[in-house]
Amino acid sequence: MEDRQIFIGVIGGGDVSPRVAGVAEAVGREIARRGAVLVCGGLGGVMEAACRGAAAEGGLTIGILPGEDRRAANPYVKIPIATGLGYARNLAVVRSCQAVIAVDGSYGTLSEIAFALQAGTPVIGLNTWELSKKGRAGSGIIAAAGPADAVAKAIELIDT
Amino acid sequence: MEDRQIFIGVIGGGDVSPRVAGVAEAVGREIARRGAVLVCGGLGGVMEAACRGAAAEGGLTIGILPGEDRRAANPYVKIPIATGLGYARNLAVVRSCQAVIAVDGSYGTLSEIAFALQAGTPVIGLNTWELSKKGRAGSGIIAAAGPADAVAKAIELIDT
Amino acid sequence: MEDRQIFIGVIGGGDVSPRVAGVAEAVGREIARRGAVLVCGGLGGVMEAACRGAAAEGGLTIGILPGEDRRAANPYVKIPIATGLGYARNLAVVRSCQAVIAVDGSYGTLSEIAFALQAGTPVIGLNTWELSKKGRAGSGIIAAAGPADAVAKAIELIDT
Amino acid sequence: MEDRQIFIGVIGGGDVSPRVAGVAEAVGREIARRGAVLVCGGLGGVMEAACRGAAAEGGLTIGILPGEDRRAANPYVKIPIATGLGYARNLAVVRSCQAVIAVDGSYGTLSEIAFALQAGTPVIGLNTWELSKKGRAGSGIIAAAGPADAVAKAIELIDT
Repeated sequence: MEDRQIFIGVIGGGDVSPRVAGVAEAVGREIARRGAVLVCGGLGGVMEAACRGAAAEGGLTIGILPGEDRRAANPYVKIPIATGLGYARNLAVVRSCQAVIAVDGSYGTLSEIAFALQAGTPVIGLNTWELSKKGRAGSGIIAAAGPADAVAKAIELIDT
Repeated sequence: MEDRQIFIGVIGGGDVSPRVAGVAEAVGREIARRGAVLVCGGLGGVMEAACRGAAAEGGLTIGILPGEDRRAANPYVKIPIATGLGYARNLAVVRSCQAVIAVDGSYGTLSEIAFALQAGTPVIGLNTWELSKKGRAGSGIIAAAGPADAVAKAIELIDT
Repeated sequence: MEDRQIFIGVIGGGDVSPRVAGVAEAVGREIARRGAVLVCGGLGGVMEAACRGAAAEGGLTIGILPGEDRRAANPYVKIPIATGLGYARNLAVVRSCQAVIAVDGSYGTLSEIAFALQAGTPVIGLNTWELSKKGRAGSGIIAAAGPADAVAKAIELIDT
Repeated sequence: MEDRQIFIGVIGGGDVSPRVAGVAEAVGREIARRGAVLVCGGLGGVMEAACRGAAAEGGLTIGILPGEDRRAANPYVKIPIATGLGYARNLAVVRSCQAVIAVDGSYGTLSEIAFALQAGTPVIGLNTWELSKKGRAGSGIIAAAGPADAVAKAIELIDT
């Protein structure tokens, strides 16, 4: 088929400031408004805020968890996937998406950005890592002006 | 929350006889009729037949794939999860379910039965592996009389 | 090259009786005497006893651990591999071996037996699981008369 | 125990220029000269060059492979670990080391750098990624002046 819905990942830290959470929530709202499915790592911080935003708009939310217990998912995750695979679940989060939006984030988020870029999956960044090699900037992360712009760019860049 | 729906796994071979596929399809239908979500490995054979059955009743179907491309999912999977983790995805299939129904199956299915029993997740068997140790039967797989009985037993045994 | 040494896996429970540990230790000794490398899950019980036996004969021992800290390896593991992948490390234990010897064991061991048989890797059993399907025995596990016979059969069956 | 040898990872691209390969080979030589064990992803490019260097000095080399066949390891890998876990093996490479040296590299290498920094494992860089967040540089990658300096820094930074 492939009349399947678009899946957009939201990645970022599990423990974030209210300001960052606000950005993630706005991203989640916009994803749901645009009719896409939100995929994340299922825990707190950016993941929870994004799911809360999507849920508020009636969107579908998938949380791919590192542990073995689906009850560890944040309350706004409608589809919890418990993997028992630790941080290897980062790979599954990213491979399940057609575009990824990174909001802030630390090293775990950086691993997800790396896996997404490796697969050629578009990564849109909001106040996140900047990468360069040998002094050459231009890492592949696409900057966005804000939540709505990030989601618009994600949808536009999905190879359909 | 945990007003989440019950997730029931259907495991079995990727290349099966029409008779086995018929059993799997009936299991999928019954899962959907009972309002549960069907989780599987997302590919063909038992997985596809079960998803077809669930989809025919309007049920939700999740396919947790070994590869990196969600387009490998059978056409009745509504939520494809691409892991890129090979057979380690068997662990994620089982950990995401609250009960598992095994229909026929070969060694891959046996690995899933083992992971489910290890976690204390009920495993209902339809014409599948029989396990014993040191001549003592009673492996933990619960026999069912048919598709409807298997789903009834799965729901009854879920620790709620 | 492939003048590499033969790698033989020893799988079994992490908490076993002295009698079972004695069998595992004898298996480890024999693997080292035959010049093969012992691979296991790196923890206690059968894994530790087998490594102790191999180490006593000057053999090389590899422990592929579920967690992130190599210090969790038993003291007879010379090459600890920390995966952080939970039980998915069972797959790596088995895929790294050319034959597997199962000593007793519970459901985790059963998952490893299943992954080995799936890949066509010979599995030799000492007082371990018996598998049958639809009443037909003959699961693919090869019975051995004792530790020395198990190692002899493993080496003989390796496809060289 | 923990009279175990130090394990140092060498990460980098699978297809590199002769100049980059030369740097990796020198890193491998120096790791072996210092009596440490070299851990890598087991394939070509930086991995193969580093193993060749270590092997020339009589060092021990471990290759943690993405696939299921140990014969995919480069010829200088003495201990091939076949995982069947795809890029999730990157996590095992990094978790098995006490320090990591990154030589050049693309997005796969970046995922390994991220997993190492996440665990607090020192990462020494030779002509590799530069990371910054919100314009603030100082990502945690420690620059080295050359192969010998990289290995010296790795050993010095290992928390013993």
